[in-house]
Amino acid sequence: MIFDSTALASMETRFRAAFVNSLSGFKAANLVGTRDEHGQHNLAIMSSAVHIGSHPPLLALVMRPEAAGQHTLQNILAHNYYTLNHVHEGICEAAHQTAARYPREVSEFQAVGLTPVSLEAFPAPFVSESRLRLGMALRDHQVLEINQTHLIIGEILLADVPDNIIGEDGGADISAANTVALSGLDSYHATQRIARLPYAKP
Amino acid sequence: MIFDSTALASMETRFRAAFVNSLSGFKAANLVGTRDEHGQHNLAIMSSAVHIGSHPPLLALVMRPEAAGQHTLQNILAHNYYTLNHVHEGICEAAHQTAARYPREVSEFQAVGLTPVSLEAFPAPFVSESRLRLGMALRDHQVLEINQTHLIIGEILLADVPDNIIGEDGGADISAANTVALSGLDSYHATQRIARLPYAKP
Repeated sequence: MIFDSTALASMETRFRAAFVNSLSGFKAANLVGTRDEHGQHNLAIMSSAVHIGSHPPLLALVMRPEAAGQHTLQNILAHNYYTLNHVHEGICEAAHQTAARYPREVSEFQAVGLTPVSLEAFPAPFVSESRLRLGMALRDHQVLEINQTHLIIGEILLADVPDNIIGEDGGADISAANTVALSGLDSYHATQRIARLPYAKP
Repeated sequence: MIFDSTALASMETRFRAAFVNSLSGFKAANLVGTRDEHGQHNLAIMSSAVHIGSHPPLLALVMRPEAAGQHTLQNILAHNYYTLNHVHEGICEAAHQTAARYPREVSEFQAVGLTPVSLEAFPAPFVSESRLRLGMALRDHQVLEINQTHLIIGEILLADVPDNIIGEDGGADISAANTVALSGLDSYHATQRIARLPYAKP
């Protein structure tokens, strides 16, 4: 069925949000850990992590200022450090629950039953239950003129990855670590590797 | 195993590219269809589609100018229109093969065995074999200062989505359309929905 601009614009707001969010394809599911100036922890699920470069290792997040992740955005901009923690099948529900609008003084770790952990004195909390974790430093921030979303670019300063999923060529088999794939606003998926294809040549 | 900045910087280039590309989590697998000023078709697989907003419906792509997708980038900037076509299990290998560096005068459609199709007179080619397809118009373009990658923001002008995967709330079940999830540079995954979670409240 074909939807044109008029059909998209006339959809009910929440219907359109669910529909459009499912069009880009599968998305990463990461818990973003931060702390504020009083040391208060914050944790929020984000589906917008995107690879920017390998050397230096850079990832971006796209964030809306008014969403449940607003404390996360404030903490990243004030403090510069944050963590990304892969969501696996066993922590899906807790991860999703971090999207609720808790008051600023509530730690989502505590509210949803996940455990903050410190790694190598990195100045932001990691998720103990996560199996693949990244320590990030803010490197660039801009507000996209087109719709006032925030583009947050960070450098990976620390990568904690299970030894047994790192292949000989460097690729990590995140499916073997049970990392889930997100679709839309609320659908979590287990994955199964069906093909690993060689470097393409004409 | 923990890798710090020094460990990441000292990895062999291709090992690091494979490793870092697998850290963000699962990625969307889309074929980007364009045409040049002579009407020559081009097709390239991209894993960097990210949701920017629902109203207007916006998606971004992150592209490296020197990669195999360089003709795609040139065509988008010259012509403003492009398509995104979900990769499903049946066209994984053909989709991956579009990453090869074909000369400008070769149509990747023809080279890999996929079929260009026109929808509603949209001025860029769709992939006939794909089940979920988007017609995009360029709305913003910038070169990210941090590493000279290109950020391409486009508006969805046309969405062709199978009726039977659109839920009552608007979310499309892309797993039911066999859309694959990508990891790293070359790993394709089938998915299975394990949870659909309600809107989170404190």
